[in-house]
Amino acid sequence: MSRFIVPKQAKSWISIPSDSDFPIQNLPFGTASMPNLVDGLIVPIGDKALHLVTLQEFGLLDQDVMLETFLDLDAVSLSKLRRRLFDLLEESNPELRDNKKARTKSLIDLKDVAPQVPIPPTSFVDFYSGVYHASNVGKMFRPDQPPLLPNYKWIPIGYNGRASSVFSSATPITRPKGQTKGPNDEAPTFGPTQEMDFELEMGFYLSHGQEPGKRITCSAAEEHILGLVIVNDWSARDVQRWEYQPLGPFLAKSFATTVSPWLVTLDALEPFRIEGMEQDPAVLPHLRHHGKPHFDIELEVWIQTQRMSKPQLVCSSNMKHLYWSPSQQLAHQTSNGTPVEFGDLYASGTISGPDEGSYGSMLELTWRGQKPVTMVESGETRTFLEDGDKVTMRAFGQGDGFRIGFGDCTGTIVASR
Amino acid sequence: MSRFIVPKQAKSWISIPSDSDFPIQNLPFGTASMPNLVDGLIVPIGDKALHLVTLQEFGLLDQDVMLETFLDLDAVSLSKLRRRLFDLLEESNPELRDNKKARTKSLIDLKDVAPQVPIPPTSFVDFYSGVYHASNVGKMFRPDQPPLLPNYKWIPIGYNGRASSVFSSATPITRPKGQTKGPNDEAPTFGPTQEMDFELEMGFYLSHGQEPGKRITCSAAEEHILGLVIVNDWSARDVQRWEYQPLGPFLAKSFATTVSPWLVTLDALEPFRIEGMEQDPAVLPHLRHHGKPHFDIELEVWIQTQRMSKPQLVCSSNMKHLYWSPSQQLAHQTSNGTPVEFGDLYASGTISGPDEGSYGSMLELTWRGQKPVTMVESGETRTFLEDGDKVTMRAFGQGDGFRIGFGDCTGTIVASR
Repeated sequence: MSRFIVPKQAKSWISIPSDSDFPIQNLPFGTASMPNLVDGLIVPIGDKALHLVTLQEFGLLDQDVMLETFLDLDAVSLSKLRRRLFDLLEESNPELRDNKKARTKSLIDLKDVAPQVPIPPTSFVDFYSGVYHASNVGKMFRPDQPPLLPNYKWIPIGYNGRASSVFSSATPITRPKGQTKGPNDEAPTFGPTQEMDFELEMGFYLSHGQEPGKRITCSAAEEHILGLVIVNDWSARDVQRWEYQPLGPFLAKSFATTVSPWLVTLDALEPFRIEGMEQDPAVLPHLRHHGKPHFDIELEVWIQTQRMSKPQLVCSSNMKHLYWSPSQQLAHQTSNGTPVEFGDLYASGTISGPDEGSYGSMLELTWRGQKPVTMVESGETRTFLEDGDKVTMRAFGQGDGFRIGFGDCTGTIVASR
Repeated sequence: MSRFIVPKQAKSWISIPSDSDFPIQNLPFGTASMPNLVDGLIVPIGDKALHLVTLQEFGLLDQDVMLETFLDLDAVSLSKLRRRLFDLLEESNPELRDNKKARTKSLIDLKDVAPQVPIPPTSFVDFYSGVYHASNVGKMFRPDQPPLLPNYKWIPIGYNGRASSVFSSATPITRPKGQTKGPNDEAPTFGPTQEMDFELEMGFYLSHGQEPGKRITCSAAEEHILGLVIVNDWSARDVQRWEYQPLGPFLAKSFATTVSPWLVTLDALEPFRIEGMEQDPAVLPHLRHHGKPHFDIELEVWIQTQRMSKPQLVCSSNMKHLYWSPSQQLAHQTSNGTPVEFGDLYASGTISGPDEGSYGSMLELTWRGQKPVTMVESGETRTFLEDGDKVTMRAFGQGDGFRIGFGDCTGTIVASR
């Protein structure tokens, strides 16, 4: 498919702050509830957002596509729609700019918008493609062995997560209860987790699926990607430690996963494509791809406790630290003929960088709780998250004079019931 | 909720073979396509099946419930509907028996029915509650350690499976490709699995869910169960061995899972309730229950190769060999506040018995391929399944003079594409 890239010098007739996540070069898509308008697709632009159903009512968009949800759309039609939205917003185009009625009704304040999950996923798969994260976990939990297991560089390791608990940004996260057992305890106990953690991940939504028994090749995979989101894979580490053998994490993860509100298209991310890290040994033929399948996207995690007036940056990482690309993940997922569907969500696994300040979880940042993080403003320390702590994840491609951002992915920890 | 148990001496005006899975004491529910009638719920009775939408059109069933799917139904309304169907089928009731037009139109031949998945599941969770299976796997793969891991008797171990590949009985199963690596291989290779296996399991569908942050207690769990099905959790053992560390099985299982066509209600299974095996050590309070939470249901696996004229029984097991009950599984699943939904499918894990002839997978029956199974009729041997092999699973509660059966759960292996 051909991608539509907004020229970097393009400007909108809407005034956009220079540090906005949503310049005219971005134009991501979300679904939202807002005052006085039907729920439906919206596109943030600067501090505003365009309500697409309203634009359609004014005859400014294709009438054949239902714009209440993503259901009628795939990567190709979304790209076309985005191109049309660019035309409408471009500074020289009078169609919307000079149509006061349409403009007033369709352009809303972004702050009035209640973010939703872009698409409630039909299935949620979580990979483990952050090689520094996998190494760190290996060093902590299998200190007597090589940090990476023998299969790591051959298989994009992943597992099925729980789709029903994928929540929108700003959804409060109730501290889960679970079974835990200390190394010296005779028996486990049941109660609120004492090791509440976040995991910094990126994810992609599937545009259109593939039937049982057929696969999506690595070179075709991107045509099946509707867009990217930030994913916070909340984790209860003490629960995980006790439950995960032999079938993997289950209740330690299933209580909540938060996604950012906006599907950022691959079109918008074209300027940030990179080759990514070298894969050595060479991967098997069905996982090979050419060109630039990875993305140079800056990632940040901020924490604000109840005693702080503003959040503190605790992690700066980058999507380039993924060993396996989204295309390889999808090619692997379908390599055994598993049917995949519109709305499937695939997350990357925790994306840590090589340095201490770039670790994407409290587990790693505090090295299993041994090195607490200090909150400078309040003087508090954290090994894991406490009730009232707010976690904000951010992601953006930094262009020359513009930033393709994902918007905030936030969640505040609430005490167990 | 109160359960409706059909008296064991009850008889229908429909003649029913004595070895039928579907006497008037059963009355399970399925959805199906069939000639000349709309797709919708049907209830097998002997060699026939009742088409519920047609019964409704004749004014013989409640008009307020949509009977094309299970969407309008929960365990309570299904129980009421089943009671009404019993009334209509009972030998002394003339309503349907003597209404020739309604009878002719609503009563179809079971052999003309194409089985469907009762409910395409919104999520699929697979437990590991068969204690003999877990022990066997432990003995094979961790011979130097105790067969059961320390968490096994404290937690109903489980993992999220793939819902999109839950198929109806009789769906051909394409041999999946995957990565495998022998112990002496330098690198893995990609190709058709050489260790295609079945897993004999029982599963339950959720009637109605629970919102995020709340749990379903062990004592309330059965009210959330719509009915039971047989589940064949097809597995590629060589793929599993190479991929499953550290996050559990993924592509080794995700290509296909087969469920039997009929939801057998807990009402119908009341006569087969048992206490089940002793749980020692005593489970934690949130997993405790009283009464008879387990079921005495006979399970069988039959294999027929292309050179055989009839299937051979290779496994006789029983649902009583589960360490954890369905109620405990559901209580565990929701103990961390995970939201659950109508249509969720929960499978038990492989149900092996204590003896060699009762093992519920080829992995165990052939003890990792060391003791091939001989097909008596053809003289062939099997370590794992070969192309053309048909696997049939059966389940039934054996009453005094009647049998509450589940119908066949079948699948035939087709060569990789």
